[in-house]
Amino acid sequence: MPSRTEATFAPPVMEARRWLAEATLPPTLPLLNVSQAAPVAPPPEALRDAMARALAAPETHLYGPVLGRPELRAALAADWARHYGGPVAADEVAITAGCNQAFAATIAALTTEGDEVVVPVPWYFNHKMWLDMAGVRAVSLATGPDLLPSADAARALVGPRTRAIALVSPNNPAGVEYPAATLRAFRDLAAAAGITLIVDETYRDFDSRAGAPHDLRAGGPDPHLVQLYSFSKAYRLTGHRVGAIVGPPSLMPEVEKFLDTVAICAPQLGQIAAAHGLAHLGDWVAGERAEILGRRAAIEAQMPALAAKGWQCLGLGAYFAYLAHPFAEPSDTLARALVSDAGILCLPGTMFRAADDPLGARELRIAFANIDADGIATLFGRLAALDRPLASRAARA
Amino acid sequence: MPSRTEATFAPPVMEARRWLAEATLPPTLPLLNVSQAAPVAPPPEALRDAMARALAAPETHLYGPVLGRPELRAALAADWARHYGGPVAADEVAITAGCNQAFAATIAALTTEGDEVVVPVPWYFNHKMWLDMAGVRAVSLATGPDLLPSADAARALVGPRTRAIALVSPNNPAGVEYPAATLRAFRDLAAAAGITLIVDETYRDFDSRAGAPHDLRAGGPDPHLVQLYSFSKAYRLTGHRVGAIVGPPSLMPEVEKFLDTVAICAPQLGQIAAAHGLAHLGDWVAGERAEILGRRAAIEAQMPALAAKGWQCLGLGAYFAYLAHPFAEPSDTLARALVSDAGILCLPGTMFRAADDPLGARELRIAFANIDADGIATLFGRLAALDRPLASRAARA
Repeated sequence: MPSRTEATFAPPVMEARRWLAEATLPPTLPLLNVSQAAPVAPPPEALRDAMARALAAPETHLYGPVLGRPELRAALAADWARHYGGPVAADEVAITAGCNQAFAATIAALTTEGDEVVVPVPWYFNHKMWLDMAGVRAVSLATGPDLLPSADAARALVGPRTRAIALVSPNNPAGVEYPAATLRAFRDLAAAAGITLIVDETYRDFDSRAGAPHDLRAGGPDPHLVQLYSFSKAYRLTGHRVGAIVGPPSLMPEVEKFLDTVAICAPQLGQIAAAHGLAHLGDWVAGERAEILGRRAAIEAQMPALAAKGWQCLGLGAYFAYLAHPFAEPSDTLARALVSDAGILCLPGTMFRAADDPLGARELRIAFANIDADGIATLFGRLAALDRPLASRAARA
Repeated sequence: MPSRTEATFAPPVMEARRWLAEATLPPTLPLLNVSQAAPVAPPPEALRDAMARALAAPETHLYGPVLGRPELRAALAADWARHYGGPVAADEVAITAGCNQAFAATIAALTTEGDEVVVPVPWYFNHKMWLDMAGVRAVSLATGPDLLPSADAARALVGPRTRAIALVSPNNPAGVEYPAATLRAFRDLAAAAGITLIVDETYRDFDSRAGAPHDLRAGGPDPHLVQLYSFSKAYRLTGHRVGAIVGPPSLMPEVEKFLDTVAICAPQLGQIAAAHGLAHLGDWVAGERAEILGRRAAIEAQMPALAAKGWQCLGLGAYFAYLAHPFAEPSDTLARALVSDAGILCLPGTMFRAADDPLGARELRIAFANIDADGIATLFGRLAALDRPLASRAARA
């Protein structure tokens, strides 16, 4: 029998790094790396200074409580209450070493071997990998042309072994922002079925909508709702590993068991930095959001020229543009060829869908957060200039 | 069906913290906290300075490779080769966010639902918890009065679902240092059975024996051997979460899947600090080891007076003294009472054995690394002064 890790696939981001290491880059086309959804610049100076000061405190170097530093749990609860417009207490918050760990801990607390979790496709690959390793069947929920999942369609997939529905909004990889009504319908479905709605809100801070993106917290604690968060994107703390779970207090003793065993605690310095960010960097994050929204607008402006070449923009938001290419070759070989042929590193749709889902072959994810408007113009110019055999119209429909 | 986390018990260290929070401490007896195997002082100043300098480098704040920073993998490989007297390459090393995560990743790479791993009792509770959560049966290997496991006895426990034997040496909780011949016999058993010997060497740097504690690496890479390590104890980096797996290169792509999904990467600053430690703090660690060995000697000197009161020292080494108490009450109620009655926080043997194992009720683990010789004298004085109903001689035998 395959081991837990043998039951899943290799990490796509590391696979893409290997393509890069093995490729001969075109000398005239400097690399545009749009493969990973991560900042490539350090945190702002004020935050780096705060971290340096924290190194003087002994406790920064010692174990902390498994569920996180009390002041960070309280600060995130307060932020959450403000952002989502409903009361949130510190005991509804657990701090994790990144949002992937938040998902893993939540799944461990909710499921066991042979259980099922409904996930819209395309999925975020680390969610799919963890479900595979947890012995949990990821039940695929097809999305339509707008890449939005439907609670009505999901209802038919909920069975006796279903323990949760896992959404990502704003979505990775598809970029789409789930409407409040969509999320509410999923929450109602979860409540009716006695299961949990997990909403990974890693990209919350870059949502194009002003105010709360949904009203799921408006009524206070909800035993059927777990939200996941990452401090990595807002404050550029990817290397410091800090994320969070916001969910029912009854979940926390279960989450504590998992975190104790797999992490003991999230790194203290990352937690200190996150608390500093929540206290002092609201305006700075607002500026970051404006910058990301500007890049999104730059992609919208570039799309018509690319559409004229047969491309489609399937989804756009958060850090991502999710595109359908017009070529005959499948996206996995295309993406790999783009490194040498066009100086572009991006991830193919095949990494976000099961091998038997033909849509993956048509799709590419562009993680645009790290390229500015000029870089976006360059990227789209290179994509528009690609001269490769086109798929037949029937294959593209 | 219980979820994965519901299939195991609550973290003992957090349970002990709750005892402390709920207890009224005796005003005349300042707390002696010997519950956790962790430094309570920060790293040396040179290391803190190196960490502060590292904050100026952008890459400190960004994602790194899933299996760790190449320079740290290479540095640990070189250290490992020196320490164990055999060749070790960087691709035999994976860096994890602490040694618990190293164990979790190794188990995920080797096992699946219904598999078995042989563990000597008393076990390290986080190993037992992870096996429970992984759906793996921890097959208890009884140890004798010396708390050493026997490969001959283990052979009878190896069956078709056995995937590994997991040892901890120097041992947590028992303190005993496994003889080289014992480890060799287990390695031979693992090789003969086609399974893996996992040796958690978290306390390697405080072994009382000079030189290599075993010759398992003398022959170079061994497909049946996985060693686990923690940088937390040697360099006082518990809050920075950095540990390692040293094992066959073929294991690493599997470990990479787990780490990518549950951690993405170990915190960069912890990794930078660990590399600095390996390069510059050898003499400092030697001094730390001498200090710990001095504390161990202080316990040996104190033991006769305690033995006169009916106590026994079952094991002594690494950070731990593992004692048998003479009282009628079981160790879990005794340990909790010791907080209020004697100003002592330690963990009961019941936390290191299954509920149906009567030996746990007699045992207490004293994690002595954080109390100096005076503190040890105070601790043993308080234990010797305990006036509680004694167990019958029959119950103690």
